[in-house]
Amino acid sequence: MSVPISEKQLLNDILPLILESDAEGINELLKNHRAEDIAEIFWDLEPDESKFLIKVIDKEKAVDVIRSLDEELQETLFKAYTASEIAGDVVAYLDSDDSVDILNLLPTQKAEEVLSHIHDQDYAKNLAAMLHYADDIAGGLMAKELIQVRHNWTVSQCVEEIRKQAEEVQSVHTVYVVDAKNVLVGVVSLKDIVLTKAHSSVIEITNTEVISVNAYATGEEVARLMSKYDLITIPVVDSMNRLIGRITIDDVVDFIKEEADKDFQLQAGLSENVESDDKVLILSRARLPWLMIGLIGGLGSSMLVSNFEGDISRLPQIAFFMPVVAAMGGNAGVQSSAIIVQGLANNTLKSRNIMPKLAKEFTVSLINGLACSAILLLFNVVLGHGYDLSMVVSLALITVIIFASLLGTVTPLILERLKIDPALATGPFITTTNDVIGLGVYFLLGRMLLGAF
Amino acid sequence: MSVPISEKQLLNDILPLILESDAEGINELLKNHRAEDIAEIFWDLEPDESKFLIKVIDKEKAVDVIRSLDEELQETLFKAYTASEIAGDVVAYLDSDDSVDILNLLPTQKAEEVLSHIHDQDYAKNLAAMLHYADDIAGGLMAKELIQVRHNWTVSQCVEEIRKQAEEVQSVHTVYVVDAKNVLVGVVSLKDIVLTKAHSSVIEITNTEVISVNAYATGEEVARLMSKYDLITIPVVDSMNRLIGRITIDDVVDFIKEEADKDFQLQAGLSENVESDDKVLILSRARLPWLMIGLIGGLGSSMLVSNFEGDISRLPQIAFFMPVVAAMGGNAGVQSSAIIVQGLANNTLKSRNIMPKLAKEFTVSLINGLACSAILLLFNVVLGHGYDLSMVVSLALITVIIFASLLGTVTPLILERLKIDPALATGPFITTTNDVIGLGVYFLLGRMLLGAF
Repeated sequence: MSVPISEKQLLNDILPLILESDAEGINELLKNHRAEDIAEIFWDLEPDESKFLIKVIDKEKAVDVIRSLDEELQETLFKAYTASEIAGDVVAYLDSDDSVDILNLLPTQKAEEVLSHIHDQDYAKNLAAMLHYADDIAGGLMAKELIQVRHNWTVSQCVEEIRKQAEEVQSVHTVYVVDAKNVLVGVVSLKDIVLTKAHSSVIEITNTEVISVNAYATGEEVARLMSKYDLITIPVVDSMNRLIGRITIDDVVDFIKEEADKDFQLQAGLSENVESDDKVLILSRARLPWLMIGLIGGLGSSMLVSNFEGDISRLPQIAFFMPVVAAMGGNAGVQSSAIIVQGLANNTLKSRNIMPKLAKEFTVSLINGLACSAILLLFNVVLGHGYDLSMVVSLALITVIIFASLLGTVTPLILERLKIDPALATGPFITTTNDVIGLGVYFLLGRMLLGAF
Repeated sequence: MSVPISEKQLLNDILPLILESDAEGINELLKNHRAEDIAEIFWDLEPDESKFLIKVIDKEKAVDVIRSLDEELQETLFKAYTASEIAGDVVAYLDSDDSVDILNLLPTQKAEEVLSHIHDQDYAKNLAAMLHYADDIAGGLMAKELIQVRHNWTVSQCVEEIRKQAEEVQSVHTVYVVDAKNVLVGVVSLKDIVLTKAHSSVIEITNTEVISVNAYATGEEVARLMSKYDLITIPVVDSMNRLIGRITIDDVVDFIKEEADKDFQLQAGLSENVESDDKVLILSRARLPWLMIGLIGGLGSSMLVSNFEGDISRLPQIAFFMPVVAAMGGNAGVQSSAIIVQGLANNTLKSRNIMPKLAKEFTVSLINGLACSAILLLFNVVLGHGYDLSMVVSLALITVIIFASLLGTVTPLILERLKIDPALATGPFITTTNDVIGLGVYFLLGRMLLGAF
């Protein structure tokens, strides 16, 4: 039973060996470590140490390590490699989907150079074709390596084919059955191949009710299908239903995580996928755009409030409650939009009809608004703020909570129709808008109900 | 090739058949539909229609449909079932993990009654044992059904065992190898069983470097291991390393999605997993707690600002910039905490040392604070607000952005040490705190720098 040991220990053990260029010692040390664990220590290595380490590790393991590196580390590493080194030492040993991921990281010219250095012409052609797909659609997620058999073969012919391909296709979950024109007929499970007599015809154990995706299906659609139907792999077909690849669940798990991360980032007002280990300027750049939006909203608020300068100087207490009105609008709006955004993302939103949703949202926010403003009223009366002002504050609070909730419900639905990521509506955008509107409502109510104060 | 057809069409076709109690017609109609798609229409059926439909569908398909139902629908459905019906018509046909999920939905007494009605004593005992595990740890995610073989068997004995178990274990991905004491020795892939001669010893093709989890490992840990090492299944062992179950990736995909949803909800200030189709009171209850926290923060703000009543009445313009200072503090704080929370969730945070993170965060927020406050200063000077006030506003903005960023960085790290979900720090909690602190800084700076105004 091998349990991942601490990365620090491994780093301490390997650094002196790297310094002494002790290739044998390194391989001896790494024998008992998984590629995924070895990949972790690259965060703490210098580029030339990384390159040296990859060079001395046994080829097959080295390629597994490269495959397991974080994209950022891969990018740094490959800067130290020539195109022909990448072609001969890396891409030649990888599955097509991993190779394409790496080619996508390289500058276009270098990627083309790598392709020209690949000996296996067919493989190079395959990779070039796969590079045409964006990396968030089925064609960009798929691998070309799969076991395919003809529908008129026997089970023993299938076993022969598996044997032939066994080297190239590492983990076999499903065998794909195609006709003479390569059109997908169905799938056969390895279990049925094990349990069926060698001379039987494969079509007898073929499941023809197979779910497949077109190469241009979105990653979201692939994730939805695989998770709804509990699929481990899904075949990818072209517009003529010809088999061109397969996607395995592990790539989709990564995709699901990335999508969830993206929503989380949008909600927090981050415009790039940043980590706390990134450089200062990258971190700064990812945050500044949303701070600027907040700033513009804030300037809007200040211009709006400046129209009420006279009212404020007559009744300075009105300023005390600006923060609570603005903040509650923001909170209520984000709550409403988050529920809609999550419904859209998980496909649990049964209907996209706006009107019934608004009616319900009105009831919910009325209840919550009443509860909050009653508490606020009580507090204000106890603290001895004037009764008129207290009523204005509470009335403004209900109005703002209701309005912000309705806006939070409508915005993601509209964004989705405009083909803009609805998760945008959960971020600083809705908070800022609600700040401005909330303050406007508050001061207008104040002027109307408190008269000339 | 079966493509999921529109759910509405299916509903329209099936409703008249249900009204006429036409069992044969229903089964004819559903023949070409997958259980997962049939499950979708239950959202639009009345409880008695649901029960009737399940009753008339062919047993095996009916159980698949039940398994695919949303938990909420399952709960409603089972209210119409007696314990003995659940035992005989449902649980008897399900895998142990799905059965346990259903038993967990029932009131404790009814669940125990169901167990007492299960004919297969061993199965009932297994289920009772599994019910002891919380549903977010490995023991709660695992299924008991797996193919296990002895390490001293031949390949043909393994094939025999697979044949025996084939009925019970639907999808076989891996065969588990154990010793006489049931201790996990390793795994064998079906591919190797297909490709190896029948009289070979199974230990020759066993991969002994298998990653397993303890039954009490957290769901997060299981998800991390499976996604890091690209595993399709993972064996679950007890403290003596004896094999007690296996977890398949599809259950972990659901778990990963639920976890991401939870973080998203916390960030949006929702205290329960709600959907827009939920009842008004449930929606209201999920939102009210966080609105109350916002309200308390808002009351704090208003009490704080009330200390500066004199300053406001002397210089009403100071109130114009309260919203921008408060909002920017909130935005900057959420950005910082979201980066840390995501780093913790994805395990990409290389170190938990607070000091270097704070130093970096200081630099990032200084840059962003300078940029924002320079723009604000320019704007204020152009609009002819007094130079002194403009300087105070800009100074307050830098201070608040820096302070909020540092607080946003520290809070999730502290929450994690206290074993509280760090995602709490991205929600209304941090926004509210930053509102209050931001306004305090602003007014204090104003009083200090503008003197008696």
